[in-house]
Parts: sequence; structure tokens; C-alpha cells
Amino acid sequence: MYSEFDLIRHYFIRPTTGTVLGIGDDAALIAAAGESELAISTDTLVAGKHFLADTDPRSLGYKSLAVNLSDMAAMGAKPRWALLSLTLPNHLAQENTAWLSAFSEGFFELAQQHQVDLIGGDTTCGPLNICIQIIGEVPKKKALRRSGAKPGDDIWISGFLGDAALVLAHQQQRQVLETSEVTQCLPALYTPKARVELGQRLIGLAHSAIDISDGLMADLGHILEYSQVSATIQMNAIACSTVMQKYLPQPWAIRCLLAGGDDYELCFTAPPENRKEIDMLSHELSISLTRIGKIGPGKDLIVKDRQGKPIIMESKGYDHFHS
Amino acid sequence: MYSEFDLIRHYFIRPTTGTVLGIGDDAALIAAAGESELAISTDTLVAGKHFLADTDPRSLGYKSLAVNLSDMAAMGAKPRWALLSLTLPNHLAQENTAWLSAFSEGFFELAQQHQVDLIGGDTTCGPLNICIQIIGEVPKKKALRRSGAKPGDDIWISGFLGDAALVLAHQQQRQVLETSEVTQCLPALYTPKARVELGQRLIGLAHSAIDISDGLMADLGHILEYSQVSATIQMNAIACSTVMQKYLPQPWAIRCLLAGGDDYELCFTAPPENRKEIDMLSHELSISLTRIGKIGPGKDLIVKDRQGKPIIMESKGYDHFHS
Repeated sequence: MYSEFDLIRHYFIRPTTGTVLGIGDDAALIAAAGESELAISTDTLVAGKHFLADTDPRSLGYKSLAVNLSDMAAMGAKPRWALLSLTLPNHLAQENTAWLSAFSEGFFELAQQHQVDLIGGDTTCGPLNICIQIIGEVPKKKALRRSGAKPGDDIWISGFLGDAALVLAHQQQRQVLETSEVTQCLPALYTPKARVELGQRLIGLAHSAIDISDGLMADLGHILEYSQVSATIQMNAIACSTVMQKYLPQPWAIRCLLAGGDDYELCFTAPPENRKEIDMLSHELSISLTRIGKIGPGKDLIVKDRQGKPIIMESKGYDHFHS
Repeated sequence: MYSEFDLIRHYFIRPTTGTVLGIGDDAALIAAAGESELAISTDTLVAGKHFLADTDPRSLGYKSLAVNLSDMAAMGAKPRWALLSLTLPNHLAQENTAWLSAFSEGFFELAQQHQVDLIGGDTTCGPLNICIQIIGEVPKKKALRRSGAKPGDDIWISGFLGDAALVLAHQQQRQVLETSEVTQCLPALYTPKARVELGQRLIGLAHSAIDISDGLMADLGHILEYSQVSATIQMNAIACSTVMQKYLPQPWAIRCLLAGGDDYELCFTAPPENRKEIDMLSHELSISLTRIGKIGPGKDLIVKDRQGKPIIMESKGYDHFHS
């Protein structure tokens, strides 16, 4: 039987490299570099809402951190420190050390890739709930915000959209994918790549950025709202996998592409004069960066299909209280 | 019907005073003062574990922040920023705006007292879970740690211990208190005073500090473990209310006093030469500060009763996975 303190010691204390004081006191202590600001955000994953209860714990540990890293990427911040608040049902904490062991392995695999120190957290007993806070450094006054988009900007996305939503539709038995298609799409759902380095490199190139967690339309919609601008995007310009291409333009696949969520890619806007540099960055980082439309005056978000006709959608994205 | 974004806007966006960028982007931005370190911690409150499901939402909002402020107090840090991750069952988010309204009022009442900006968070749907992160500033290399206690130090506590545990025992029908006693003890349970100013003033006076959340024995035990020292305390020196005095030395009352938890008072150690200054501080802040024992070499924690006999306890404090 593990006590709360044993649990923390056993699974979550690892050496830290850039921290004044890590886990073990009433608070952790960090010191930010002199000329930087700190970017701070938090994301919660709830069993049955954000993941199925029987999700592989290793990928859950990985993804819990990935979705938070994605917020740092969207600000252009370098992630440095994380806190992990785990609410665990007794059967996961006590009887099944394999669960916690796998969860922590997945978490630290990604943390180490990005040199993020786990500096604190909380372990409590209750319905499974994973709440992570992430803290990163960003050069003073340089953070990528939602509010910086300007008419004339190109709209870009990184990677491919919609695969996580496709495979989720299969898992929830709303659609049937072939086995090979499931295999191809699963990494997008379970081990999304947070575009951390890309985010930092977009400082000075992009006017605005957001990460796509609730779906392209919803998240681009935030940029429009905060920047007081409009957007027109071409659906067929949106980069997507061969699996997605097969199911387009069926309406359910269009929904996955535009409003599925769980993509954790970046959507950003940049002036046309930066196209060449952005293309070079795409090459250098081996990340697909695709122009999908333009920012304009006004406030509407128009998605055009292959024929240039606007696509009408009922829902623009994922709302935690309505789905 | 509120959407997630409406919810956040309506109840949780308030003007911030010391923040570069508050709620609304992928992350908040803060800038720490040059010669300070940042203290960061998080505490989660789970319905049915840390509070009864029908707890008044206003006091719940207050207490959720108070327990986090208490961690800042224990480090000697000045709390500056908070993030709030709320997992809410649908009936609280949608049908009962009175609940969220009262919760946010309680939260901001205390936040404003301490000039803490709410800079971010997350709102998700699921079993009620309140996860708060707090970030404070502390002068470089001056934070109060658990590891600084030295043989010869006096052991001090702030305030009165055990009242929250007394009234909880009554609420859980394990004991029966008189109505007037319940009234007297309820504030300790619902609106604990985080000793924020005291913590900051103890920098330079105390060698070590911790906040008492899991019970005096458990939390003082952490100081002993991290500092590699022993302690002897006199139970009858522990400051407590007239209600507690009435029920002592009954074993259940002793348990409330020594191991009840939820006190959110500070336990700290300081060299005897600082007694006079600490007494003056007690006077100035109108907070009871009481010497309850001494730090020694070795590693045991001995609590002596009125007759000088050691008190044997089965459990030293609250463990989230064993109670």
C-alpha cells in the first residue's frame, strides 16, 4: 500500500536541472532569466470527457503533458517547468502500480525531450482527473498572441488536421475505419506532437498564433475575435492525411477536419513577405506548414469548398459543456 | 445555457493589476521582479474528500484559494497570481448559476484582500474538482524551507489548532458539539486565515516553516525529516480554543488537535534569540504565536502530555489514500 508521499516519491521525483527547489516543500522555487517573461497555462483532462477510461496510461501521461506544451508553443514560449495534480481513484493508486508507473513513464518521456522539470503537484483521491500546469520563458514583449492578426496576413497551419477526430469517431463507433487507417491515425490522438520549437521560431515571423485544440474553426475564430479581423480559408488547401483525403468531402469528415479538435497543431497568421522564411523553417524543422487562407477586415470566418462555395457548419468546435 | 467561454467571461475575468497578460490567450504572461524567485504550488479540492458535496459555494471558493495562499505563507512568499481549474458537473455549470456566482465571489473576496490576480485556468465538465495554482514572489535565496530547522530551535505555531477537525467530526456525526460550539469552530473549517503576512515577516527570523494542512504531527514530521532533526513538544502548550479545551484530554479531541489537519496555521522553528522579536510580531499582527517545544538532534517526534508522559498516536495525520 502506497501512502500519498510514497506515491509522489516513487513515481514523480526526478532530478531537475533548471530549478531552484523542486518537489518536497510547500512550494517549488524557480528563477526566470532576467530579460524574459513567464508564460503560464493549465489544462485539465477528465476521464470520459477528454479520454476513454481504458486509455493506455503511458499515452495518457504523454498526452497530458503534450496538450500543455502545445499552449507554450502557441505563445512562442520555451517550456521549462510543470506541475502535475493527479486525482486518482483508489484502484489506480493502490492496486495497480502498473498504471501509475506507465503514466509517469509517458509523462517523463516527453518532459525529458523538452527538458521540462516537474517541480510540484498534488495527489488526491477521487474520480480520475489530470490537471497540469506549464510554465515557460518567452523573450520580453515578444510572445505570440491571439490578438496580433492583421488584414492581409496569410493564415497558416502546421501538420495535418483531423486525424485525431477521425480515429475518435471510429473508437466511439460513430464511423468505421479500416484497421490500417486506425493504425495510421492513432498517434495523432494519443501522442500529439506539440510544436514547441516551431512556436519559438515563429517569434518575429508571425503576427498571431493559437494552438488547435477545439477545432480549426473555433480556434481560428478566437484569433479573429481578439484581433477584430475576418478570415477566408480554402478547405482544400488544408493539409491532411491520405486517410482524411479518402473520406472527404463526406460531411462527417469535413466536421473532423474543421471542427474535430484535439489536433494540437499551430494556426498562425503572418504577413506575405515572410512566406519564404516560413517555407524555409518548414524545411528545416521537417514540419508541414501550409497556407490555407487570408485575413481580411470585418469579422466573419468563411470556409470555401473546392467550388468556392461557403461551407455552413452547425458547430464550430468542441464545447466542454455541450458535447 | 452558458458555453465554456461565456462561463469564464461571466464569472472569472476581473481586472488584473500586476500581470502582463491575463485570461484569454493560450497562456498568461507575468514578469517577476528582478531580485526575486518565484514560489509555485498547487492544491486540489475534491468533492466528498476535502469538502462535503453540499458545502456553501461561497466558502468553498474562499477556502480553495486560502489553502493555496497558506502554501505561499509557509515559504515566506508574497502571493501574486493564481490559476483556477474547475471541473464542474453539468448541473452546477448550467442550471445553477447561483452556485458559480457564489463560488467566484468567495474566491475573489480573498484574492482581492491579497491583491492576487486570477490569470488563467480551465473549465471542464466532470465530477466536481477544484485545482488552483498559486505563484508568489520571494526574495532571492530567502524562502522559508522545511529543511532549515536546527537543534536548539524553538518550535512555534500560529493561531489555534484543531477547531476545523472538531467541527468536521460533528458534521460527520462522529461527535456531537453544542450549537454555540459549532458556530465558534465553523470559520476555522470554512474560511481559514492563510498567514500570508506572517510568513513574509518570518523571513530572517525563522529557520524553517511549514503550513499545517495534514495535522501538526504529520507536518512537523516533514520539517524533522527534511532537516534531519528531532522534536519534543508539550501538548498543553499548544494554543487552542475554549471549545477544544473543554473536550481535552479526551482521545478524539487530542487527535483533532495533533492530527486533525485543515488548520492552515504555520508551524515554524526559530533560534531562541529571536523570541522577543517573534513576540513583538505576534503583537503587531494580532496573531497568536506560541512556543510549543524544542528541536533536538536525532529524528523522533515526541509529544508529552500534562504529566510529561509521551502520547502514542495511531495515525500522525491525514493521508488522502487511507482515510
